[in-house]
Amino acid sequence: MAQENSRTLISYCPDIKVMDCTLRDGGLVNSFRFDDKFVKALYKTNIKAGVDYMEFGYKASKDVFDVKDFGKWKFCDEEDIRAIVGENDTDLKISVMTDVGRTDFRKDILPRSESVIDMVRTATYIHQIPAAIEMIDDAKAKGYETTVNVMAVSKVNDKDLDSGLELLAASGADVIYLVDSFGAFYPEQIQRLADKYLNIAAKTGKQIGIHAHNNQQLAFANTIEALRMGVSYLDATVSGMGRGAGNCFLESLLAFLRNPKYNLTPVLDFVEQYILQLKKDGVVWGYDVPYLMTGVLNSHPSSAIKFIKDGRTDYKAFYQEVLEIE
Amino acid sequence: MAQENSRTLISYCPDIKVMDCTLRDGGLVNSFRFDDKFVKALYKTNIKAGVDYMEFGYKASKDVFDVKDFGKWKFCDEEDIRAIVGENDTDLKISVMTDVGRTDFRKDILPRSESVIDMVRTATYIHQIPAAIEMIDDAKAKGYETTVNVMAVSKVNDKDLDSGLELLAASGADVIYLVDSFGAFYPEQIQRLADKYLNIAAKTGKQIGIHAHNNQQLAFANTIEALRMGVSYLDATVSGMGRGAGNCFLESLLAFLRNPKYNLTPVLDFVEQYILQLKKDGVVWGYDVPYLMTGVLNSHPSSAIKFIKDGRTDYKAFYQEVLEIE
Repeated sequence: MAQENSRTLISYCPDIKVMDCTLRDGGLVNSFRFDDKFVKALYKTNIKAGVDYMEFGYKASKDVFDVKDFGKWKFCDEEDIRAIVGENDTDLKISVMTDVGRTDFRKDILPRSESVIDMVRTATYIHQIPAAIEMIDDAKAKGYETTVNVMAVSKVNDKDLDSGLELLAASGADVIYLVDSFGAFYPEQIQRLADKYLNIAAKTGKQIGIHAHNNQQLAFANTIEALRMGVSYLDATVSGMGRGAGNCFLESLLAFLRNPKYNLTPVLDFVEQYILQLKKDGVVWGYDVPYLMTGVLNSHPSSAIKFIKDGRTDYKAFYQEVLEIE
Repeated sequence: MAQENSRTLISYCPDIKVMDCTLRDGGLVNSFRFDDKFVKALYKTNIKAGVDYMEFGYKASKDVFDVKDFGKWKFCDEEDIRAIVGENDTDLKISVMTDVGRTDFRKDILPRSESVIDMVRTATYIHQIPAAIEMIDDAKAKGYETTVNVMAVSKVNDKDLDSGLELLAASGADVIYLVDSFGAFYPEQIQRLADKYLNIAAKTGKQIGIHAHNNQQLAFANTIEALRMGVSYLDATVSGMGRGAGNCFLESLLAFLRNPKYNLTPVLDFVEQYILQLKKDGVVWGYDVPYLMTGVLNSHPSSAIKFIKDGRTDYKAFYQEVLEIE
């Protein structure tokens, strides 16, 4: 157990990196239809707040997805990012996410010398890891920082997870992410998993990240539990904007981190000026009863998203429905 | 450290008691103006859900507070409780809270043989402990189960807290509560404090309880962290209803506890039938940006409650205001 190496509240942790995923995970709520004013303001906010990485969206394949059905941050064309950041002559690094099987990575991921993107994050399910490694190694060879985000590990047994992590520890990924896709984990489980990830990653000098969901109102608690165990890369979104119950709140995380590099105030300003309007416009995310149920039952949030979209409130019946799916 | 004795997710914990404080802490939101239909339904819900205790409200002094300004659960007259529960021939125990200096305890707390109340909980600040002990010992002598809830300990230094807890460990209190009044604590701090409380309480055979607030969306996380350390009495409210950011959600807690004695479904039904209506009627509680700030800055939530009541959204300015108070 790495418990002995865990950190305290006042530890100085220069390895910590904060990743703002508002556009990427939040894009799953509004089909990536953020206007440029919003994106520019968020970019400036992250710079002022000392955030380390800002994820602009997915590099989705235009063969797989119709561009008419989504805003541009589903695809993150180079010129669209540049229209916001220019040459990005700042300390804020830029990330995009690629999905196994849904990205034309050989064509759409440019050599780094031709791109303002700094980091490529590859999302994969456990059974797709060999395909993910091909993508990760491609991005690494092109010069990018790389992460791999293994989704839905709450559905994976320990032996398979160990095998997958060993493969990834030997891959071109710089960072391996512990992802609680269904918001199913309690801090005690995050502690155990973080320990597992850290031990495997240590063998080949990888770092570990955490991406949490708020189904049980534990996204922030699980994020700081992981941090305490030695996890370095911390995903968050402004006001927790993200699919279903959403993510760890960037506000909570920056208020927690004692490093003077981080600054909460610009994010508070952004919430007032942009997030309140999104909510007024009817964009819906965040903790609600059905997300608690899919979280507790370790189930994909899609049924809860539909329940809310349909305006249903018969929670008892829904609980039985989710139990039957499982 | 009691860390070695801490429990795991699947531990069987027969000592655990769930306390529903919806009327008492939720009453702080609506001046205790719950109608009898709501209270009866909540009573039946708690019985069906296997909840151990239901707190009906405060035993406030009618000399200190005007009965016109509050609903009846501010005062919890014996006949008002009996109108809901009759002789309470159930496994659900009934609790009321008394505040130091605001309760005519000698007159208003009847001998237990004349009351349907099972437990008297005394809320105290650290400097009021001698006065609290007088009240606790009075309730104990009258035959009640007793707890003492030491508020605002995030403002108390370790030495004073130790002294206060030693006094309480020698008092007539059966249970000593760790109370995070301002929602200021992180799970790591709850772990340390729970360990302190448990060690002091063990000397005289007391048990420990936890009452958390949700300013940083950590009420549930802090409650289960305390539980894991060995804390037995767990406060929660339906949908977290309570002052400011509210409390640990009863839904989350019952979904977490593996003891088959507890049953989530009746609470889901109650949320649908009663809580949604309360919210539609404009009763407001729960996590919001200003509560994060008072929580992080370890400040009383009153300024945040006023900020929201005034319809303000200038979070940045509010942050500076709270910083100045502190």
